[in-house]
This record gives sequence, C-alpha cells and structure tokens, in this order.
Amino acid sequence: MPMSARGVFVSIEGGEGAGKSTVIAALHAVLAEGGREVVATREPGGTPEGEAIRELLLSPGQHLVPEAELLLMFAARAQLVRQVIRPALARGAAVLADRFTDASFAYQGGGRGLDTGHIAELERWAAGLRPDLTFLLDVGVAQGLARARSRGGEPDRIEREREDFFERVRAAYLARAKAEPGRFRVIDASQPADAVREAAVAALRDWLRQHP
Amino acid sequence: MPMSARGVFVSIEGGEGAGKSTVIAALHAVLAEGGREVVATREPGGTPEGEAIRELLLSPGQHLVPEAELLLMFAARAQLVRQVIRPALARGAAVLADRFTDASFAYQGGGRGLDTGHIAELERWAAGLRPDLTFLLDVGVAQGLARARSRGGEPDRIEREREDFFERVRAAYLARAKAEPGRFRVIDASQPADAVREAAVAALRDWLRQHP
Repeated sequence: MPMSARGVFVSIEGGEGAGKSTVIAALHAVLAEGGREVVATREPGGTPEGEAIRELLLSPGQHLVPEAELLLMFAARAQLVRQVIRPALARGAAVLADRFTDASFAYQGGGRGLDTGHIAELERWAAGLRPDLTFLLDVGVAQGLARARSRGGEPDRIEREREDFFERVRAAYLARAKAEPGRFRVIDASQPADAVREAAVAALRDWLRQHP
Repeated sequence: MPMSARGVFVSIEGGEGAGKSTVIAALHAVLAEGGREVVATREPGGTPEGEAIRELLLSPGQHLVPEAELLLMFAARAQLVRQVIRPALARGAAVLADRFTDASFAYQGGGRGLDTGHIAELERWAAGLRPDLTFLLDVGVAQGLARARSRGGEPDRIEREREDFFERVRAAYLARAKAEPGRFRVIDASQPADAVREAAVAALRDWLRQHP
C-alpha cells in the first residue's frame, strides 16, 4: 500500500470517551508549526457525500446489517481519500484524520465480527492508502463509556451498543497496534486529559524529528 | 455461490429504455400462477435503508467517485439480500428483482471501468447469492435512450451519462450473458413492447417447465 506521496498522514483512533478531540487540537497545533498546511478530516464524513452517508450510518432509526455498515464506511472513505486526503498529501500538507481504516477493523471487524480479510481487501483498493503514523488512545471500556455519557447528548446508533461490543472493539484496536508497532503509538488514555495530550504531543514531536 | 435455497430467484437486467417495467409486470403474473408468493424488489433500494442509499446514488447533485458508487450499490444490496431476498426464498417465494449484481458488473465495471475482480469479490461476500435465471433486455443504445427520453421526467445522475458510457454498459451485460448462458436469457428488446413481453414470458414458462 503506498504511503503518502509527500505530506504527512496522521490518524487518531480510539473508542468512546478516549479524549480524541483534545488530542486532535494539540496535534493540529504541532503539525501547523512552521506554517505547514494541516487538513483535518473526520470519519465517516468529510465530504458532502460522506456527510450524507454519515447520517445514514449514525441515525438510531436505521437497522443496517453489518455488511452494509462496512460498505457505507468504505464508501465515505473512498470519497474522502480521493477528494480530500490524496490532493492534500500531494501538495505537501499534513492530514490529521479523526479515524481511518483501523476503525473499520476495530468496529466492523472486532465489534460486528465481520471477516477481516474482506476489510483488508477494501483497505487495499477502496481506501488505497494507510497513515504514516497512528495514535491509539486506549482506555478501559467502562471508564470510556462513563466519560462519553457524562458529555450528555443523545447517543448515536453505534454508541448505543453494549459493553461487550466495545470490549471487542478495544481488543481489535490493540491487536492492530501490536501487529504494526512502527506505525502505531498507543497512548494510555485513562490518564487525565492533560497527561494524555502531553504524551501524544511528545510522541508526535519524536516521530517528526525522525521523519524530517 | 449458493443458489436460492427453495424459492426461485429471477432478475431482470437492461439498459435505459429497454422496457423492463412491462416485462416485470408480465413475469410477475406468470410467477404468481398457482398461488405462489412473488416478492418484487428494485435496486438500488427495496429496504428503508436501501432507499436512502438510492437517493444518494441517483441525486444529480452528488459527485460520487466510482469506488464510492460501487460500495453504495453493494451496501443497498447487502441490506436487500438479508432483509428481503433470503427470507423470501427461504419461505419458498419467487423473488423478481429489477436489477441485481449483474448491473454492478455492467454499470460500475463496464461503464465506470472499475476492476471486475473487486466486483466479483463483493458479489461473493456482500451479496452472497446469484439469481437462478436472469433476463437481459438488450437494445441498441441510441434506440434505448430515445425511448427513455420520450418518457419525459428529469434524468437521474446515472441517466445523464454520455452515450459511450451506455455502450460500455451494454457490452458488459452481453459479455456476462455469453459467459453464463445457462442463467441468462437475452431478449431482443428492439422489438415492439408486446413482442418483448411475449418472448420473456415464453422463456420463463420454458425455464419453469425444466425446473419444476
């Protein structure tokens, strides 16, 4: 799978209540130092077509079969890669992605139990690229869900799943990080938000020094 | 790929202006003889989730990349197979499908030029079944488009394609029919509507006699 052509492609992964938003803001600032363009994306979504798919995916009224859920995720991702991520990388920007293909391995593979061979096949041709660096914000399921619920708001279709679903998601994320230690940085997200943010920033600075 | 468990799975394929609607009504009546349950489906769509995907696919305002178009087609199809087609076949009904996976080979493979290996892979696990009998209503592109336009109405996103797109769609359909002569019945749809309908009905009656 081709890595990014010129820019830097960084993704942030993690379950519910892992504190992604705080970390993303901090990494954005680091990547932008020296005037580099930073393009932030979120999944599913990030294009007009992808946001329409996002509504379908997250609306609590839908009863999607797991295969349809996976295909919709990759439809939005195929659109995002071709309309946003590849053009950004080609002009030398940094792309900071709030979730990417690892999330499909975790949620649709681990969580829903779909065959990871199908997901790997879709990764190869529908996504067609992989991040240079991926942060996994790891936190115990009970702690993460308690944090997510304390934010208030109505849970979306996927947030309504049961705890054992999120345990499988977490295990799948950790297995991917273990299999690709060169790309992944696992951050202990059970720590207070400041400590999580500082650990992620330090790991990014370290990576950037090694990949000038 | 497993064929239908007990029922009969019949699909109707064809380009623009091939006269599918007339043929479908006639085949529906034949299949229903003797009191058999007939479940008619259309693609993309046929479930609440699939109809939402259909809107996304056919809206002229969307700018879908070919990969996203293919994945959305299969997302709607995965939903339709699991929620409608498999249950209907399991209870012994006849399923009459206005387009199925052959349409992806024709439109996204032939028309858009996507790798048919990817489509075959999706057929295997996302659709997971293939019709017992498929009617291809074949008509020259110019004649078909003239008929479709004479119906009036605003063309959808795919109907707005150029003639060479539909030439590739037609060629891909004919190639599939040639590769699977046991499953396909090619009907010359350049004939008047009555003759097309009668040819399709005769072919269905013939098939049913051979598959009691």
